[in-house]
Amino acid sequence: MIMKVKTITLNKSVFEGNDREAAALREYLCGEGVFLVNVMSSPGAGKTTTLVQLVNNLKANFRIGVLEADIDSDVDAVRVAAATGVKSVQLHTGGMCHLDAAMTKQGLDELDISDLDVVFLENVGNLVCPAEFDTGAHLNMMILSVPEGDDKPLKYPLVFERSQLVLINKIDTLPYFGNFDIDRCHKNIAFRNKDAVVCDISAKTGEGIDAVAEFLKNKAANNKM
Amino acid sequence: MIMKVKTITLNKSVFEGNDREAAALREYLCGEGVFLVNVMSSPGAGKTTTLVQLVNNLKANFRIGVLEADIDSDVDAVRVAAATGVKSVQLHTGGMCHLDAAMTKQGLDELDISDLDVVFLENVGNLVCPAEFDTGAHLNMMILSVPEGDDKPLKYPLVFERSQLVLINKIDTLPYFGNFDIDRCHKNIAFRNKDAVVCDISAKTGEGIDAVAEFLKNKAANNKM
Repeated sequence: MIMKVKTITLNKSVFEGNDREAAALREYLCGEGVFLVNVMSSPGAGKTTTLVQLVNNLKANFRIGVLEADIDSDVDAVRVAAATGVKSVQLHTGGMCHLDAAMTKQGLDELDISDLDVVFLENVGNLVCPAEFDTGAHLNMMILSVPEGDDKPLKYPLVFERSQLVLINKIDTLPYFGNFDIDRCHKNIAFRNKDAVVCDISAKTGEGIDAVAEFLKNKAANNKM
Repeated sequence: MIMKVKTITLNKSVFEGNDREAAALREYLCGEGVFLVNVMSSPGAGKTTTLVQLVNNLKANFRIGVLEADIDSDVDAVRVAAATGVKSVQLHTGGMCHLDAAMTKQGLDELDISDLDVVFLENVGNLVCPAEFDTGAHLNMMILSVPEGDDKPLKYPLVFERSQLVLINKIDTLPYFGNFDIDRCHKNIAFRNKDAVVCDISAKTGEGIDAVAEFLKNKAANNKM
C-alpha cells in the first residue's frame, strides 16, 4: 500500500490568461489519460469525508491520486492517505482563497500523474472565489451540506452554475434540520443550473455514494476532449 | 414597528489604503455614537439566525440597524426585518467575496445611522477573504458551527486571529456530530488567538445568547476610541 503525504506551498500564477492555461492543462491531462475532478464546497461541508468514500469505492477500477488544498495545516491529506492508501499531496495556498490552473499544475507535478487514471482536487473551502477560476479540471463537483441550508444556491450563484455535479451531503441529518426542504433545495439548484446532476448523499453513512461513483466511472471512462 | 428592506449594489472601492479608510470610518462612527459589529462565518453557520436572537435581546437597550451582505438574493434582510422589526438593508457585493471599508460606508449611508446606536454588518459567508479587509467595525465576531468540524481554526487562521469574539454555534447538534470535540475546538481557537472570547451557543434554541448579548452590551456602552 502506497502512502505518501507531502505538503507544498503554491506560488501565485504570474501568468495572465488563466482560462487559456486551464484549457491547455485539460488537454494535456486527456493526452496522459488522467481525469481531473475539482471538488468545491463551504468549509466543513464534507469534501474530505466524501472523497474518502469515493476513492475507496473507485480504487479497484482506477489508480487514484488526491490533491488537498488548504491555507494551512495538512490534516486533510494525512486523513485521506490513512483512510484510502492512495497518493495524497497537501497544497498550501499561501493565504489564497482559491486555486487557479497554474497552481493545480504545480500540485499535479508534485503528485506525479504518470501512474494515475483519476485525480481529485479538493479546492479551498469557499463558495465564492474557487468558482471564478478554471482549474483545468474535466468536471466540477460541488457539495452543499444540509446544515448550511437550502437557500445557498440563491446566495452563491456561480459555484452552482459552474458545477456539472452537485452533491447534497449529510442527508442523515435531515431529521435534525427541520427547516431544510430537500425539494426546495433541488429547485434552487435547478434555478441556477438546470443541467446539473444532483445526488443526495451521506458521506458519513455511505448512502448515495454508489450512484455518484457510477456517474464518475462513466465520466472518467469517456474522458475525451 | 419600522420595517424597511432595501437592496443596494455596492461599488468596488477605487481607493487604495483600505486600512486608512477603515480607521477613519471607525472614528467617525465613534463620534456619531454608533457601535459597529462585523459578523463573519462560513455559508450556513448561522449568522442570520444568531443576529435575529441578538437583536431581539438587545433592542430594548439599543436602537439597532442591520446590513446584510450577499452576492445575490435578499432573503437575509427580509428575514431579519420580519423577525426583529429593525431597519435592515441588503447589500449586493457584485460578485465580490468580501466587504471593505468603502463598501461598508455605502451600506451605512443607505441605512441612515442618525437614529442608531448599534449596527450589525453580516459579511459575505466566507472564512477566507472577509478577514483580510478591515471594514471599520469596532468588533469582529465570527461564528463557527458544530457541523463544520472542530479543525477549522487550523485551516483558516486569519479569521480566528482577527476576531475578538468567537461563537461556537449549533451546540444543540453536538449529540449528532460525535466527531466534534468542543474542548479540542476551544484549544484550536486559542492556538490561533489566545485573547478571543469564546461562547458556546445555539441560535436555534437560544442557549448562550444572553451571555453574548451581555458582552456586546458592555462593549457598545464603552465604545470609545
